[in-house]
Amino acid sequence: MEGEPTRIMIGVNESTIKGYPHPSISSKGAFEWTLRKIVRSNTSGFKLLFLNVQVPDEDAREVEGGCNWELPEGKLNKVELMVWLFLMLSATELRISVTDSVGFNDMDSIYASPEDFKSLKHMDKERGLHLLEYFVTRCHEFGVSCEAWIKHGDPKEVICHEVKRIQPDFLVVGSRGLGPFQRVFVGTVSEFCVKHVECPVITIKRRADEAPEDPVDD
Amino acid sequence: MEGEPTRIMIGVNESTIKGYPHPSISSKGAFEWTLRKIVRSNTSGFKLLFLNVQVPDEDAREVEGGCNWELPEGKLNKVELMVWLFLMLSATELRISVTDSVGFNDMDSIYASPEDFKSLKHMDKERGLHLLEYFVTRCHEFGVSCEAWIKHGDPKEVICHEVKRIQPDFLVVGSRGLGPFQRVFVGTVSEFCVKHVECPVITIKRRADEAPEDPVDD
Repeated sequence: MEGEPTRIMIGVNESTIKGYPHPSISSKGAFEWTLRKIVRSNTSGFKLLFLNVQVPDEDAREVEGGCNWELPEGKLNKVELMVWLFLMLSATELRISVTDSVGFNDMDSIYASPEDFKSLKHMDKERGLHLLEYFVTRCHEFGVSCEAWIKHGDPKEVICHEVKRIQPDFLVVGSRGLGPFQRVFVGTVSEFCVKHVECPVITIKRRADEAPEDPVDD
Repeated sequence: MEGEPTRIMIGVNESTIKGYPHPSISSKGAFEWTLRKIVRSNTSGFKLLFLNVQVPDEDAREVEGGCNWELPEGKLNKVELMVWLFLMLSATELRISVTDSVGFNDMDSIYASPEDFKSLKHMDKERGLHLLEYFVTRCHEFGVSCEAWIKHGDPKEVICHEVKRIQPDFLVVGSRGLGPFQRVFVGTVSEFCVKHVECPVITIKRRADEAPEDPVDD
């Protein structure tokens, strides 16, 4: 009667406070909410698909050749200032386009059980791998099947791209639950996904009692 | 192990094309999606809560005393036109405030099984009741427990109010999936809910092959 399991994609990222390899408060919250409220005891009815997107700031910095685009010291005249602005903006554009092209490599490794991480211990340099191990191990304990993989690029764009490629039944994303004023400055991946992703999206806000001192942290 | 069932609130409304008592294409779609993708075979793990909001245009019309605010025939000078506009806007404001106060009556009747509708057959004049009967009967067939009720007012506001009162685990709303241009004119309840409702919200877009000739219809 059950047929194919419901495929739930969950976007997960690293914590900005506790640092690598801990999951962010909001992605951990979204994941636990999904287990408790959706999967429940019906572990064979669902499959969880974890996507971690690594922002390739390292790659971008290399392309810029170590240039430091801070405003030069000393007084600049208007023409000098214009030239500096032009150069800085060109570099920014270059960085953006490089980031994009780095994004969608198709060298996927897919992790589906705790064993998949054991053989990798000696070469687990890739950022995000410990994060995936956390979620895959927890699924294994819970008894629900899963797959997890890492992509590089802008999280918003990559999530949309991966939803198109993987076609999950729906997407779960955590959110810091920032107010309108804070959102202007930090942007939110969840809002972008709700607007642009092809499948249904459910946003799970971080619980107020779990928010860190600085609510922009996660 | 299962504990309390997951309580899913679903906003349902009548079709604009097939007319009373049929559910709209998008609310039927959102409901069937919930059964197929979330509830699945775990019928004891979930409880569905159907909210139908009736827009009290009838009440409003009575208050207006049957006035017909169409532009009077014949040529009007500027002063006459201003007076007419002022009167029409005042009436609109009156209607809005009446609509609001009608909104949150607490004379709830809750319908939880097909039997609850049988005794009402002779007095089932309230709009929306056939709609609830449709969803409650379908739940009964599927084997999942449910509750259904009607409220009056502005659907956006009433849904937010009821989420606060009922505290479901999440809210499911259907959406016509209109483009940005159409949305400007018709407004969407789903977008408002995603922004303002206190619990997680999942929006289920109508399937493209189910859209009627005029996509604003539903």
